[in-house]
Amino acid sequence: MQGQNQQQAYDRGITIFSPDGRLYQVEYAREAVKRGTASIGVRTAGGVVLVVDKRIRSPLMERSSVEKIHKADDHVGIASAGHVADARQLIDFARRQAQVNQLRYGEPIGVETLTKAVTDHIQQYTQVGGARPFGVALIIAGIADGEPRLYETDPSGTPYEWKALAVGADRGDIRQYLEDNYEEEMDLAAGVGLALSALASVNEGGLAPEGVGVATVDVETEQFQELNETEKREHLEENDLLDEGDGNPGDDANPSDDADAGDEADGDESEE
Amino acid sequence: MQGQNQQQAYDRGITIFSPDGRLYQVEYAREAVKRGTASIGVRTAGGVVLVVDKRIRSPLMERSSVEKIHKADDHVGIASAGHVADARQLIDFARRQAQVNQLRYGEPIGVETLTKAVTDHIQQYTQVGGARPFGVALIIAGIADGEPRLYETDPSGTPYEWKALAVGADRGDIRQYLEDNYEEEMDLAAGVGLALSALASVNEGGLAPEGVGVATVDVETEQFQELNETEKREHLEENDLLDEGDGNPGDDANPSDDADAGDEADGDESEE
Amino acid sequence: MQGQNQQQAYDRGITIFSPDGRLYQVEYAREAVKRGTASIGVRTAGGVVLVVDKRIRSPLMERSSVEKIHKADDHVGIASAGHVADARQLIDFARRQAQVNQLRYGEPIGVETLTKAVTDHIQQYTQVGGARPFGVALIIAGIADGEPRLYETDPSGTPYEWKALAVGADRGDIRQYLEDNYEEEMDLAAGVGLALSALASVNEGGLAPEGVGVATVDVETEQFQELNETEKREHLEENDLLDEGDGNPGDDANPSDDADAGDEADGDESEE
Amino acid sequence: MQGQNQQQAYDRGITIFSPDGRLYQVEYAREAVKRGTASIGVRTAGGVVLVVDKRIRSPLMERSSVEKIHKADDHVGIASAGHVADARQLIDFARRQAQVNQLRYGEPIGVETLTKAVTDHIQQYTQVGGARPFGVALIIAGIADGEPRLYETDPSGTPYEWKALAVGADRGDIRQYLEDNYEEEMDLAAGVGLALSALASVNEGGLAPEGVGVATVDVETEQFQELNETEKREHLEENDLLDEGDGNPGDDANPSDDADAGDEADGDESEE
Amino acid sequence: MQGQNQQQAYDRGITIFSPDGRLYQVEYAREAVKRGTASIGVRTAGGVVLVVDKRIRSPLMERSSVEKIHKADDHVGIASAGHVADARQLIDFARRQAQVNQLRYGEPIGVETLTKAVTDHIQQYTQVGGARPFGVALIIAGIADGEPRLYETDPSGTPYEWKALAVGADRGDIRQYLEDNYEEEMDLAAGVGLALSALASVNEGGLAPEGVGVATVDVETEQFQELNETEKREHLEENDLLDEGDGNPGDDANPSDDADAGDEADGDESEE
Amino acid sequence: MQGQNQQQAYDRGITIFSPDGRLYQVEYAREAVKRGTASIGVRTAGGVVLVVDKRIRSPLMERSSVEKIHKADDHVGIASAGHVADARQLIDFARRQAQVNQLRYGEPIGVETLTKAVTDHIQQYTQVGGARPFGVALIIAGIADGEPRLYETDPSGTPYEWKALAVGADRGDIRQYLEDNYEEEMDLAAGVGLALSALASVNEGGLAPEGVGVATVDVETEQFQELNETEKREHLEENDLLDEGDGNPGDDANPSDDADAGDEADGDESEE
Amino acid sequence: MQGQNQQQAYDRGITIFSPDGRLYQVEYAREAVKRGTASIGVRTAGGVVLVVDKRIRSPLMERSSVEKIHKADDHVGIASAGHVADARQLIDFARRQAQVNQLRYGEPIGVETLTKAVTDHIQQYTQVGGARPFGVALIIAGIADGEPRLYETDPSGTPYEWKALAVGADRGDIRQYLEDNYEEEMDLAAGVGLALSALASVNEGGLAPEGVGVATVDVETEQFQELNETEKREHLEENDLLDEGDGNPGDDANPSDDADAGDEADGDESEE
Repeated sequence: MQGQNQQQAYDRGITIFSPDGRLYQVEYAREAVKRGTASIGVRTAGGVVLVVDKRIRSPLMERSSVEKIHKADDHVGIASAGHVADARQLIDFARRQAQVNQLRYGEPIGVETLTKAVTDHIQQYTQVGGARPFGVALIIAGIADGEPRLYETDPSGTPYEWKALAVGADRGDIRQYLEDNYEEEMDLAAGVGLALSALASVNEGGLAPEGVGVATVDVETEQFQELNETEKREHLEENDLLDEGDGNPGDDANPSDDADAGDEADGDESEE
Repeated sequence: MQGQNQQQAYDRGITIFSPDGRLYQVEYAREAVKRGTASIGVRTAGGVVLVVDKRIRSPLMERSSVEKIHKADDHVGIASAGHVADARQLIDFARRQAQVNQLRYGEPIGVETLTKAVTDHIQQYTQVGGARPFGVALIIAGIADGEPRLYETDPSGTPYEWKALAVGADRGDIRQYLEDNYEEEMDLAAGVGLALSALASVNEGGLAPEGVGVATVDVETEQFQELNETEKREHLEENDLLDEGDGNPGDDANPSDDADAGDEADGDESEE
Repeated sequence: MQGQNQQQAYDRGITIFSPDGRLYQVEYAREAVKRGTASIGVRTAGGVVLVVDKRIRSPLMERSSVEKIHKADDHVGIASAGHVADARQLIDFARRQAQVNQLRYGEPIGVETLTKAVTDHIQQYTQVGGARPFGVALIIAGIADGEPRLYETDPSGTPYEWKALAVGADRGDIRQYLEDNYEEEMDLAAGVGLALSALASVNEGGLAPEGVGVATVDVETEQFQELNETEKREHLEENDLLDEGDGNPGDDANPSDDADAGDEADGDESEE
Repeated sequence: MQGQNQQQAYDRGITIFSPDGRLYQVEYAREAVKRGTASIGVRTAGGVVLVVDKRIRSPLMERSSVEKIHKADDHVGIASAGHVADARQLIDFARRQAQVNQLRYGEPIGVETLTKAVTDHIQQYTQVGGARPFGVALIIAGIADGEPRLYETDPSGTPYEWKALAVGADRGDIRQYLEDNYEEEMDLAAGVGLALSALASVNEGGLAPEGVGVATVDVETEQFQELNETEKREHLEENDLLDEGDGNPGDDANPSDDADAGDEADGDESEE
Repeated sequence: MQGQNQQQAYDRGITIFSPDGRLYQVEYAREAVKRGTASIGVRTAGGVVLVVDKRIRSPLMERSSVEKIHKADDHVGIASAGHVADARQLIDFARRQAQVNQLRYGEPIGVETLTKAVTDHIQQYTQVGGARPFGVALIIAGIADGEPRLYETDPSGTPYEWKALAVGADRGDIRQYLEDNYEEEMDLAAGVGLALSALASVNEGGLAPEGVGVATVDVETEQFQELNETEKREHLEENDLLDEGDGNPGDDANPSDDADAGDEADGDESEE
Repeated sequence: MQGQNQQQAYDRGITIFSPDGRLYQVEYAREAVKRGTASIGVRTAGGVVLVVDKRIRSPLMERSSVEKIHKADDHVGIASAGHVADARQLIDFARRQAQVNQLRYGEPIGVETLTKAVTDHIQQYTQVGGARPFGVALIIAGIADGEPRLYETDPSGTPYEWKALAVGADRGDIRQYLEDNYEEEMDLAAGVGLALSALASVNEGGLAPEGVGVATVDVETEQFQELNETEKREHLEENDLLDEGDGNPGDDANPSDDADAGDEADGDESEE
Repeated sequence: MQGQNQQQAYDRGITIFSPDGRLYQVEYAREAVKRGTASIGVRTAGGVVLVVDKRIRSPLMERSSVEKIHKADDHVGIASAGHVADARQLIDFARRQAQVNQLRYGEPIGVETLTKAVTDHIQQYTQVGGARPFGVALIIAGIADGEPRLYETDPSGTPYEWKALAVGADRGDIRQYLEDNYEEEMDLAAGVGLALSALASVNEGGLAPEGVGVATVDVETEQFQELNETEKREHLEENDLLDEGDGNPGDDANPSDDADAGDEADGDESEE
């Protein structure tokens, strides 16, 4: 649509429109999201499911420090993909919003309300000068008024509600898998199975319990809960996805092991 | 009128005039509006009508999260086209203006007063440095002093009053259709029909109820009201526009399904 | 005087002088004024007259929303040409000045005092960084101390007093017409006739009542008054200027109808 | 001394020195002064004289709105050349300084004190970022301690005291005339004559009363006084300078009549 | 992936994304870390170990002023690699956080809490304009709830938890050594031995006691402790790593001795 | 050392270092000083002497308005060279410092203390962004503790103490003259003679009393005193330097008379 | 490592990293330090020694105004090399820190504490925008807890502790001399001798007493003391370094005498 030269002219400025009405900085922030490993959300009749890819760069790294699933409030969980440090800022913002809502109104914040507070915050960084957009996408999952809700926030600050979605690497392929296999009336366990299967569909050789993160918010208890290794293993076995390896799919995987890959891959470390 | 090179020189600066007196950033923001799916407003003797194109990228996305029609006050609705996150900022601004007016004067805000508060807000972003213009156009529709009123706000901050208008993709074709078919003395139902027909005129194969959003403000009740699926279906059948498909006109439609289209189309996600 | 390249170097900066002592951003703002449709002011012994070109882009647009004549105070009217959203800011500023003067001194603001408050405000935007100049020219017309007064404000913030003037498109030709036909001792009706004739002199085929705006401030009543359709028709007939068409002079007119003209003309929408 | 290219590199920045120690923005502001019509000051034993060129662009423009002579205080007048809107800012600043001095010390402000307050204000705009220099030169003339005083302020913020001076267009030629004809012991009338003759020396065909502005501050009365048309005519006749034309020297004059000259000359309108 | 020219376009801006979603300034800050001498952390069952390379540029420099190991609190130590002056800022920030936590909650700060406070602080410098990122990586080591914890902070502001890691020069090779030789159940002395051996693996000819810094936080005492020369010598002897030289590996070492190397090497002085 | 192109790259930024460690803006400000006419200071056993070149551009200009010698306090005088308007800012700053010192400590400010307050103020303008350096050098001369003191401030903000010095045009030649002829035990009259002779050494044809400014601070009285025309004439006669002309050395002098020289010389007007 | 062109791209920005992790502005500030004359510090058992090169540009300049040795507190001295005006800012900062410490804790500030307060201040100028780094290096010498301490601060804000060091011109050669001749157990007199010998090693023909500055802080008295001319002469004679000339080594010396050297050398005046 445009040549390489013209495009360059626009992406240097932080928050301005290009002649065809695009905000390149926001689009580049979306690329930052794609550089992160995948996160998946599934909404079922019985609650919401978050599944994340937790592959690590080195066996010496503690998997627990790969934070891609966060508890925002008792009834809301958030999964992220993209720039980790940016995600932390947004998670903190979301938690403060949830606390303030509880204090002010004496009741838990609505999932949609929370999502829109976050996206409004994100939008400010795309319009007002002196900062760059957030390079992260969030999946916000929770229960509101007894109903499971599943939202996405993207770097432009737009909120979307989904039945099932993926963000991060291989987003297109995973979403295709979800579209092909999603059923409205799944229970929560089936939702975990679907999400894990979708993630496995882009990883040869199966998934190891320690290579994934899984969390749910049950529509009954309305409590955010992360699954432990045993629970994850059961779900993987049940869905025939278990890989007994080390949870890192191999040398051809992305992100690469930078002890081998040397300098260039180092730039990827803060993307998940 | 100007060569490519000269134009580039001006569109990098945020808020300055070009030699022929144009504000390129504002014009590029208008392009952002055109990248969004269409929204239509029609004023009839019986009230005002808002119709929006609600096509979605994936069957898994909740249509209800494609927010293009918003209730600004009991008697005022707003439809948007363009950058979604920007629209949210303006809708919030409009709602606060409406509340403040109610508190201060004990009566509902006038539609023109509300429109001009919004356009003044937009204009500030085109003159004062440190921010970009809003990449969104709004249709503000409501009842004031018992009369239906229909306004447009554009990225320059100019208010226009219309009998019927379209913003967003295919704006020119839809407006032509409206000009050819508009009748002053239509009732509200005829207005809904005209707006849906106009939208269908640029969509081959008809419209599905879930693929459009319809809202009215009746001159009698002075209440903003969104139509449910059954009501929309009735209007579509009545006007012979019904498409029994999934509400997405097909693969050649814009915006495209990015699970298929890959990276490039992804940049369009936040446009409606 | 200067080559294309050198000029470009200076007009990118907001508020700096060029080597020959010019402020290009102010001059480009004057170009924005010329892109607007014409507004005319005439001072007569019986009062002041404002006439504006109200052509619209589409028959569906409400002419009343093409705001080019504004009441600033009971005894002062303002016509504008150029960037509409900018004009609104200045009109609001003028109204506040008029109100403050009434409150503080218990008497109506002088026309010259009002004009200079506006031009000082405009000048600030040409000297202090962080904003662009206003892309609009105003004609401020009113009665002060029983005398009709007629002022112009330009984008540099300079006030001028005139017997008769034009701003906007075709300014040079209309002014020539005014110079050739102006008579000091005209009454108010003759002034309306002169202004309409001057506008017609650059529009082939006459003027339609709905295609022009006319306002007067009578030296006796000291009241700003906009003429209704009937009154305008009488003046046009009296001066043999009546066009029974739709008030839009034709396809070759500027600004063009963008439903036909497509994308490019769209950039002109906020100019009058 | 420097080629065109190197110069360009420096004059884009607002307040930086060039390699040879020049502030180009200040020098370009001086060019803006030269683009204005001339103003002349003469100091005589009997008081100070201000004479300004009041040529106008159109016979329809009110000469009284060409403000080049201003009363700053009862005993001080100011003439300007250059950017009109900038001049107004400085005149206002001077008037406030005069009022404050009166309030604080119960006596009229000294002419030198006033001048230096103005030049300090001007200097700030040449050193601190975020604004451009003032594009105007002032002649400040008044009586202090019974003595006539005549000062110049230039765009760099430097105060100069003169016996007689010219600023604006043709400054060099007029100053030469003043140097050749100045006599210390002139009375006020002779000073008016000298100033008018100097202005006429660069205008073929004499001067019309309405084409010039004349003001004096008499050393006896210490009152600023503008001459009316009759008084100006008498001085012109007495000095054999009277032109019975319209006060505009002709088509070849600068600034040109933009009704004829078209777009380009329009940029000159705010210069005097 | 991208040519040299395109990359240049993006790395000049401080905090903006490149088209492929990278933040070049953050990546260049990582290069600054690699220019520093290595620091190593090892977590054992008995506590955490920090080992740093303390080579100096001149025998006259006091080794004690090469500060690469810092006590952040009684139970937490921090080692740094990269820009020394930047490290000091972060160490000070960490110490204040530890003190505030003690004051507010009456208990020592958690290692993870401390790490995340630091990384949030770092992230701010990568998103908000007006500053550059921190050019330093930290290893934060301590005991929390009786458990040894070992974290890394990188210039993007991402926290990672490790069993063993290296930052700074030769990071890839040292990490490989750690991965090959790490054992979960090592005691603290074995951890010191592993860290020293890993450092020696990239330094020919062994290590001198004064050329390294070693600190531990014992899981029993929960006290940060730096080893003295005798203790370091014992560990080096025990692991057969002792070099009896001056602690500077030789002329081919990096960083070079700038008394010999002249101007260019001087730029490296503030890197460790 | 560097080519023309590379130099340009650095002098556009206000306060940054070049690769060889220079601050070009400060060096260019020094050029601005050289463009001013010379000022000379001499310290003698009997007090300090200030002599300045007061040549003017036109016989109509009041020499008294060429302010190059200023009284900073009863016991301190200041001479300047360079940008006049900048000098005024620094003189005002110095006077306020002197007043504050008197108020706070009940005693006159020390000459060195005053000088360093001024140079610290100057330095701020060379390091902090948003302003340019001061384009002026000052000679600060006074009596402190019964001793004559003579200081220079340059555009970098460095204070120097001198026995005798020159700033401005011909600085090198005048200093050479001073070095060749300075005697420690001169009395004040001999100091005046030396300073005038030094100035005459670079002006063919002698000096006129009105063409120079002379001030002294006597070590006995500790009072700043400007010499009147008679006193100056006596000193010039005594030293055989008297020129009976107009005090302007001729057409070949610098700065040139811009009535003759036209536009280009005009840029020099604010330099002394 | 990088070509000339690429380097240029990075050194224009104030505080950003280059692709290989360098901060060019800081490195250029180091060049500014090298342009200054040398300063030397030596730590002995009996106290610390500061020796500075005090060559001046003209015999008329007061050597006492060449301030390169400063008393920061009773027990701490500071020598500087580089940009004089910058040094003054840092010295003032150091003095305030010392005073505040005395007031707050009732005891003298530690030398290390003082050094780090200064380096933290320096670091801020290398990370936060809107200012350039300080172009100066300091040697901070004093007694703390009865021990002599000798520190360096460089433009990056890094503190180093030394036994003996040199900053400024010929730094490499002087340091080599110090490394070859330093002995731990020297007394204070031997330390003065070593420092003077080291300075003489890069100056042909010896040193004159007035051409150097010498200060000590004795470990017994803990008092900063500058040596007078007689004392300096004795040390020079004792070490056979005495030059009976004027203290300026000759025309080939750097910095050159600008009365001869003309314009170019003038830029060096503020470097010592």
